[in-house]
Amino acid sequence: MASVNPPRGMRDFLPVDKARRERVLAVIRERYRAHGFDEIETPVMEDYARLHAGIGGDNEKLAFTVLKRGLDADTVRAAAQDPVDVAALADLGLRYDLTVPLARFYATHRAELPTVFRAIQMAPVWRAERPQKGRYRQFVQCDIDIIGDASSRAEAELVVASLDTLDALGLEGGMVRINDRRVLDWMLESFGFAAEDRPGVLITIDKLDKIGPDGVVEELRARDADASAVDALRAFLLRPRTLEYNPYGERQIRAALPSDAPDEIVAHLVGIGEAVRAARAEEVAASPLGDIPLVFDPFLVRGMGYYTGTIFELAHPSVDYSLGGGGRYDGMIGRFLAQSVPAVGFSIGFERIVDLLTSEAADAAPAVVLVHDRDVPTGQLLALKSALVAEGSRVRLEQRTKNLKALLERAASDGYTAFATVSADTTRAALDLKPLA
Amino acid sequence: MASVNPPRGMRDFLPVDKARRERVLAVIRERYRAHGFDEIETPVMEDYARLHAGIGGDNEKLAFTVLKRGLDADTVRAAAQDPVDVAALADLGLRYDLTVPLARFYATHRAELPTVFRAIQMAPVWRAERPQKGRYRQFVQCDIDIIGDASSRAEAELVVASLDTLDALGLEGGMVRINDRRVLDWMLESFGFAAEDRPGVLITIDKLDKIGPDGVVEELRARDADASAVDALRAFLLRPRTLEYNPYGERQIRAALPSDAPDEIVAHLVGIGEAVRAARAEEVAASPLGDIPLVFDPFLVRGMGYYTGTIFELAHPSVDYSLGGGGRYDGMIGRFLAQSVPAVGFSIGFERIVDLLTSEAADAAPAVVLVHDRDVPTGQLLALKSALVAEGSRVRLEQRTKNLKALLERAASDGYTAFATVSADTTRAALDLKPLA
Repeated sequence: MASVNPPRGMRDFLPVDKARRERVLAVIRERYRAHGFDEIETPVMEDYARLHAGIGGDNEKLAFTVLKRGLDADTVRAAAQDPVDVAALADLGLRYDLTVPLARFYATHRAELPTVFRAIQMAPVWRAERPQKGRYRQFVQCDIDIIGDASSRAEAELVVASLDTLDALGLEGGMVRINDRRVLDWMLESFGFAAEDRPGVLITIDKLDKIGPDGVVEELRARDADASAVDALRAFLLRPRTLEYNPYGERQIRAALPSDAPDEIVAHLVGIGEAVRAARAEEVAASPLGDIPLVFDPFLVRGMGYYTGTIFELAHPSVDYSLGGGGRYDGMIGRFLAQSVPAVGFSIGFERIVDLLTSEAADAAPAVVLVHDRDVPTGQLLALKSALVAEGSRVRLEQRTKNLKALLERAASDGYTAFATVSADTTRAALDLKPLA
Repeated sequence: MASVNPPRGMRDFLPVDKARRERVLAVIRERYRAHGFDEIETPVMEDYARLHAGIGGDNEKLAFTVLKRGLDADTVRAAAQDPVDVAALADLGLRYDLTVPLARFYATHRAELPTVFRAIQMAPVWRAERPQKGRYRQFVQCDIDIIGDASSRAEAELVVASLDTLDALGLEGGMVRINDRRVLDWMLESFGFAAEDRPGVLITIDKLDKIGPDGVVEELRARDADASAVDALRAFLLRPRTLEYNPYGERQIRAALPSDAPDEIVAHLVGIGEAVRAARAEEVAASPLGDIPLVFDPFLVRGMGYYTGTIFELAHPSVDYSLGGGGRYDGMIGRFLAQSVPAVGFSIGFERIVDLLTSEAADAAPAVVLVHDRDVPTGQLLALKSALVAEGSRVRLEQRTKNLKALLERAASDGYTAFATVSADTTRAALDLKPLA
């Protein structure tokens, strides 16, 4: 009990930080709702078995698990194996993402939902990761998902809603990198990688941005990947490419791929682009090159194993890391229904965006500190406060201290914009509001 | 994995319910902020030892506990005792209230907070209670607390902010029952109950509303309470009382108590009333009897053991259960600081209030469903959608189904207010918006 810190890797939020987080959440919620998405909520806990059913990828290993209530000594003793039989001790766990709960929610409530269901989830998740800078054990995810639409319209709606939300947060100029898992699979097959080797090859290709083509080739060779397939990949990566400007569209996509790319996948990617172009027509018209905020990247991988089609990543010129991403995961939602349901999702990187938006958006309402002497009757103080609150102000009472300057500085840093001093005879009419620096 | 329901006693929220919850939270947040309170957030988990330090009362037994990561067989085997040594298996737990985390937060961050800190917390808590109607294992609490002010101004600010918040939610006419734990203690002493018996006697007196004076006396006798003290209590409960109208104030408070009530406690209660009267002057002036929304109830107990002074309960004429409550708990906040810090809190019963407010507040923005034929190009659809979104509407796309009526009814029940049909040649100018029933 000596330390009074929050648990390892978890954060307290002081008023200024909490207010910023709530402001950002409110903007995201409002924009997503405008685009026809509806917010839902699930409990923070799900059944242990469901969280460990193999669809959460590596995150399953990071789940916090919740002890059964009313355990007896025999049950605990039986769990004392190597490794420990956690499933015998725990019946619940904290969710590590919002996708497994969404799949469970959809299975429960499908009959009450529209045929095409557009979901918003904005809620915390928990992962027992080794704490490090910018990585927390509790953090908020903001997901939108479209369930029940296999067409490229779904991807386009997600992209447009996400870019519009970035705009509303003051982060204009966002850009979506896009690819399709089937493109990756087809490419690797065309180079000659066997099906069972491809997941491992993808893990290496995922590092292309960091280690470059030579690094990828070197790592694959060190891992004893099929030599002729590696050579084919290398030749493709290092091929001479035209530097000619190439707006997003069929021509650009085909030029970025080996020849004979499957028409169906290319058409899906082209369809997304056409819809985004129509939806963001003003931005496209204003762009010097008439381009849309979409970039085809045939080597974009995205980590999660459950993606089956389109994958995206949200970029912004002000930062060199992604601000979100997502993809199509048609196999997963139906998992708890034993039937196939098309689904595609986009997750905005809430924690990263909050850290970017450090400037304080001023509240619309005036915020007033009433600095009072010790002897002012409480009734008088509360009458003044209520009068200002009724006029639309935010009001804090502060008893005068020796260091008035420090008191006012702290109020200003808490977002207060004006102050007045109150003595025993001050009435509302006599209240002299002065701006806070 | 057969069931797809949320865990026992926990709830999913469908869009209509989630939207209502967020609306209510937004109103509460806005009102509390107007009254000078600042929102904070703590992690949902706290150290196991802290949650079980004896300040959470009966709720400690209901805490969900979180298994240590990386447990080995020896540790688990050693925990297999009767009863099971949970503390050896678990290092964290889910909070069962927002008061223990607030005490921990204040100890961590005191240097960064104002001298008088007015906190808002609106967040879920978890209790492994036996699920029953209206009682859930995950539910939201909305607390405001004032730390660092021992004067009656703190109580008055809480009462006024809470009543103003009820008003803003459309629940005008709220009323606060008030008492002081020291009044109860002094009364029981004056009747002749020994100090060690008083907590048990309070548990019985807490049932006065349900079982009446005779029931209380009967239960105390059955429990072998001091006979002459029970007689004195009985005589007081059944004493002849004037029915004369008696506004909240010193006269009413003294009339409701045995004679010679301690001046300091009475003055504190009177001070709260005077401040509430000044703050709610308009309401008082409009009341036919010039009364304030405060009722002294010398037998109000409130369950929690940590209260040290004023206790309150929020009532509303439309329901016969309380809509919130709270009290002064001067001993607790300082617990993690090894020094005394005055504190008083008020918790609004969020779940009960949400259930009361079943009517749908319409969104300010128009909400439009675009019903389109299958062959309308996606680009055209998204261009129309974006145009309406840019004009301030909320927009959902729906592909036309055979049963258009059912589709529109479902959209209306989801809060949509207008619709238009879109065919391959519909432009924004040609869009014919019709109201949804």
